[in-house]
Order: sequence, then structure tokens, then C-alpha cells
Amino acid sequence: MLRVSYQDCFDALLKVLLKLGFEAERARRCAQLFADTTCDGVYTHGLNRFPRFLSMIQSGLIDIHASPALVSSSGSIERWNGNIGPGNLNAYHSMERAIALSREHGLGCVALANTNHWMRGGSYGWQAANAGVIGICWTNTLPNLPPWGASDPRLGNNPLVIAVPRPQGHVVLDMAMSQFSYGALASYRMRGEMLPVEGGFDSAGRLTRDPGAIEESNRALPIGFWKGSGLALMLDLLAAILSDGRATYQIPPIPERESMVSQVFLAIDFSALDPSHGALKASQIADQIIEHFHLPPHSQGERVRYPGYRVLKTRQENLANGVPVEPAVWQQLQKL
Amino acid sequence: MLRVSYQDCFDALLKVLLKLGFEAERARRCAQLFADTTCDGVYTHGLNRFPRFLSMIQSGLIDIHASPALVSSSGSIERWNGNIGPGNLNAYHSMERAIALSREHGLGCVALANTNHWMRGGSYGWQAANAGVIGICWTNTLPNLPPWGASDPRLGNNPLVIAVPRPQGHVVLDMAMSQFSYGALASYRMRGEMLPVEGGFDSAGRLTRDPGAIEESNRALPIGFWKGSGLALMLDLLAAILSDGRATYQIPPIPERESMVSQVFLAIDFSALDPSHGALKASQIADQIIEHFHLPPHSQGERVRYPGYRVLKTRQENLANGVPVEPAVWQQLQKL
Repeated sequence: MLRVSYQDCFDALLKVLLKLGFEAERARRCAQLFADTTCDGVYTHGLNRFPRFLSMIQSGLIDIHASPALVSSSGSIERWNGNIGPGNLNAYHSMERAIALSREHGLGCVALANTNHWMRGGSYGWQAANAGVIGICWTNTLPNLPPWGASDPRLGNNPLVIAVPRPQGHVVLDMAMSQFSYGALASYRMRGEMLPVEGGFDSAGRLTRDPGAIEESNRALPIGFWKGSGLALMLDLLAAILSDGRATYQIPPIPERESMVSQVFLAIDFSALDPSHGALKASQIADQIIEHFHLPPHSQGERVRYPGYRVLKTRQENLANGVPVEPAVWQQLQKL
Repeated sequence: MLRVSYQDCFDALLKVLLKLGFEAERARRCAQLFADTTCDGVYTHGLNRFPRFLSMIQSGLIDIHASPALVSSSGSIERWNGNIGPGNLNAYHSMERAIALSREHGLGCVALANTNHWMRGGSYGWQAANAGVIGICWTNTLPNLPPWGASDPRLGNNPLVIAVPRPQGHVVLDMAMSQFSYGALASYRMRGEMLPVEGGFDSAGRLTRDPGAIEESNRALPIGFWKGSGLALMLDLLAAILSDGRATYQIPPIPERESMVSQVFLAIDFSALDPSHGALKASQIADQIIEHFHLPPHSQGERVRYPGYRVLKTRQENLANGVPVEPAVWQQLQKL
């Protein structure tokens, strides 16, 4: 693993995006979103994902010049068409718009159809929290998860993000509805490790901790069995209905062709509920909840961490020591 | 198990509530919410829960005359004080208000502090769906779930409800963040059955399907292990911050004293996004998604059901044959 400075990482991405024809400001935002994701330790969806992003541009699934267009609106909720623009730029734009709506109406919601993979969903949670508002967003995706009671993938793992701003460190949950992503299963298999808990079924329909057996059967497990199966379905229903966009069953079940997904971005500006000291009070409430969550261990081996804690630690470390990049990906980037 | 007609069940509840001093309209709503819950097959939170509801009134934890009062508002979001009124009436009132806000603003949100157990959370999802809008609501509760990595309960199992209206049958997810409730664990134990999947840790810290071992250790499992643990924390943060009410750590860890919980009710009136045929289009989208979810079984033994399906079947059956009631509870009700 190579380490390069954040600035070098950003500059390399920016250069490639400008060469591809991205407009200057969009190139900077897109490079920043990729670089931040790697810097925050979500290595699967940062720089390492960039080659697939490029190939989707080359195959015409992503239109680098397209921006979301307003379709209709009703007070605090708006429906936008993503016009198959770059997924991270579309998502960033949508959360910005949801935040602006929440400043005006308390709540703001943007439902986005015809967009592309947003890369790291957590990015848009951090974006909302940095703006001092609560952010909730989710995306549907291709069928990659069997519903509870079925053996073929009909659900997407539909990642859900919830972010609460806090001066001492935002609390940001970023989770898919499958217990392990296929990327995580591959990592465990390549390290020769079993999963820490059951992650799916083998081809004989038995629950297993063997990552390779799950890759083979294509039967990953929804979180909480029937519960995550239900939650993934609801997120798909909400995304498709609110955006009037594609549902999971309408998205090609081929990762290289995943496009035209539907997403929802919700922002809540709670500060106006308590104009004199809303933000301060909210941060005190959050601090106390996190403090009680992190109580000293009850017994040996315990370790509790709030969602977002590890991101902050990794970010500090990577800003100090350089962000880790795959040498092959880094070389490819230099040559473009 | 005794079966009584829905009307007899409702009348018996109404009589007791009126005797207790409930104002007539509130008594009718409260009786209906309890009777509907039993009729829909959620037996733990309907009639069988009524004796505990009574004892909480007698001990002063529930004020039968109290209604929610508006604390502050900002456009489409409002903060209310539940004044420790009856939890189901407070929740019904809050969802009604969220629906009204959504008619005006597209989105509507009511954050409710100082309320009581809402009994069946799904009731307020059905309420929103019956009004033709999307309903999302959740509650925090007493500490009854260890966070992932800890052995002592610091999280609530914080039920989450998501409802999507559909003429062919609303899709209503109603799920707590623990894999099994303590009520479910007791049922399995009394039937002498093991859980279908691991439901918690035994006192030695091993994952187990033995319901009694989990009751003993008090270490139920969050859905999806670390994922449900994170989601339960976020729901508590959102409920406490938005309502300025109590967080889980501030609620007594004794079921008989659970009071002053915090809740959030969100309604989305999507019809205005597509005024000419919004509701029709949404129901077609939902129908198609549910159709693909329910595809014919791939292999023997498969059985997929959307959230809310079983409720509708049970409701039909119980309306036709009478609702099942525990003879002891029914007798107690007659004597009051």
C-alpha cells in the first residue's frame, strides 16, 4: 500500500476529470468527494472505485455534463431528474437543495430519479451535518439481496445514511441492508478469514460464516433476517414513489451496468424550533447520549464506538500520514 | 383462547375507559386503538396490554385528561409536549397533526416529548396510509438492548414504523431494533422452542438460540449486530433532539415505570408532486414493486410476504370469527 498526501490525491483526480471534460467547479467537487472518501477510510468507494467510474463514463452510462433538473415541487418537497449525471455530483447537489429547503421550511426533501451510484453515501450525511442540520438519505440499487424467505436476489441492499451534527464530532450512520457487502465478503475470503457472524446462506441453504460460500450462492443475508428484508423493501418503495424513478427490479442486475437509480435526501433544520439556543441545546443532548453510549467497559474485551467515530480517527491519521492508495490504481491515474 | 366479536371487545374497553373518567371521544379513540391492535393480530400490544395501561394510570404515570400542547414550530416541523397523556392518544394526535402539516407543506413532522408507550407503533403507520400519505414514525424507550460491543443494556429497541399507502393493501413495516422482543422470547420459552435464528448472548457471552438463556443474561441482540445498534442510537438521538425530550438513558430501566418517552412522526403527502394522477401513479409503482417481491417461489419451502400482508389476513379472519382474547384478561375487564 502506497501513501500519498491528500493534496496529491486530489490534484491527480482533478487533472483526470478536467482532461475528461468536466467543467472546472464540477471537477473540483467530484475530485474532493472521491479524495475525502479515501481519506475517511472508505477505501472501496474512493480512489479504488474511480476506474469503474471512468469506465461507466466511457460506456455512456454517466453523462459528465448533466445536472439534476427540477421536475415538480410542493412546499418542502421537490422531485428532480438526475439526467444520468455523475452520481456523487447529483447527490451533493440534491443534499444542498434539501438543506436550503430545510432552512426555509424546517424540513426539506429532494427525491432524485435517473441518477448514478453515489459512491460513499456517508458523504452526504457529513455534508448535512457540516451545515448544522440533520441529514437522512438513502438510495436504491440493483437486485443483490434475496428477500427473507427467497433464494434469489430481488432486493437491493439500499444503503441508508443518518447524520446528526455535533461540534465534538458528527454522528453519521452509513449502512447497507445486507450484513456484509460483496466487497467485504471478498476481503474476508482473500485474507482467508471466516466472517465474525453469519453473513448468508451457502448453496445448500444453510446459514454460514464462509465468505466464499456466500459469493458462490449469491445469497447474502439482510440485517436482522426478515427485518432488514422489510426495511430494504420500504426504502425502495419510498425512493421509487417519491422520485417517480426506477425501482430495484427495473435496474439491470449487473454491477457494471448499474444506472438510473432513485434516491431520497431529507434535511431537518431543528435550530428554528428553539431560536435562542437550539443548536447549543441539541449538541448538549447529543453529547450526553454519546457519553452514556460510551460508558466504561462492563467487562474485558468490550468496545463500543458511535457511528462516525472511526471516520474521524482515520481522517486525522490519513491527513497526517498520507492517504493509502492501491499502487496499481495510482499508476493508472498518473497515465490517464 | 376465547373469541369475542370486535364490537363486544370495543364496547368492553369503552365502558372501562368511560368509568375511569376518559372524555367520551377520547374513550372511543382509545378503545378503538386497543381493539384494532388485537384485531390485527398484535396480541401483545392490544387487549392483553390493557391491564398494564390501567396500572400505569393508577400509579399516576399516565394522565388520562392530558393532551399534547404545542411548544414551538418552524414551517413544516412542530415540537409538542405530551404532558404524560395516554401514549396511544398522544401518538394518534401527533400523526394527525403531521398529516395536516404534510397537506400544507408536502412534508409534516411532529416531535413529541413527555409521552407514554404508544402500544402498537404500526397503528400510526396505518393511520397515515389510510389518509393516503406516507407515514414514518419511531419512539425511544427504556434501556433494554446492549450496544454492539457491550454487555449491559444502554440502548432502547426503539421501534420504527414506515407505511406506504396502496389501494390493494398498505405496506406497513413495524419493527423494533432488537431481533426478538422480550415478549417473543418468553413465548418461545413457554412453548419449549428454540429461536429460528440467534437472538442474543447467554451469560457466558456466547451467541445463542435459547430464549431462556437470553432472558437470563439480559443480552438481546440488535438486528444486524453492529448495524441495528447504530440505528437504535440514531433514532434515540433524533427523537431526543427534535422533541427536546428524554433520551433512553434518562428513562427508568423498569418496564412498569417506563414513561416520558420521546417520539417523532413524519408524514409525506406525495400526491401534490404529480397533481394530475399522483396517487394513482404511486399505487401502480407500489403494486409493481410488491408483485416482483412476491414472485413465484424459486424452490420448495420459499415464502415471501410483504410487511403488512399478514395483518390484513389476520384482520379479515378476526373480524369474521371474533378476536382472540385471553380469558383471564377478558374476565378482569368485565369486573372493572
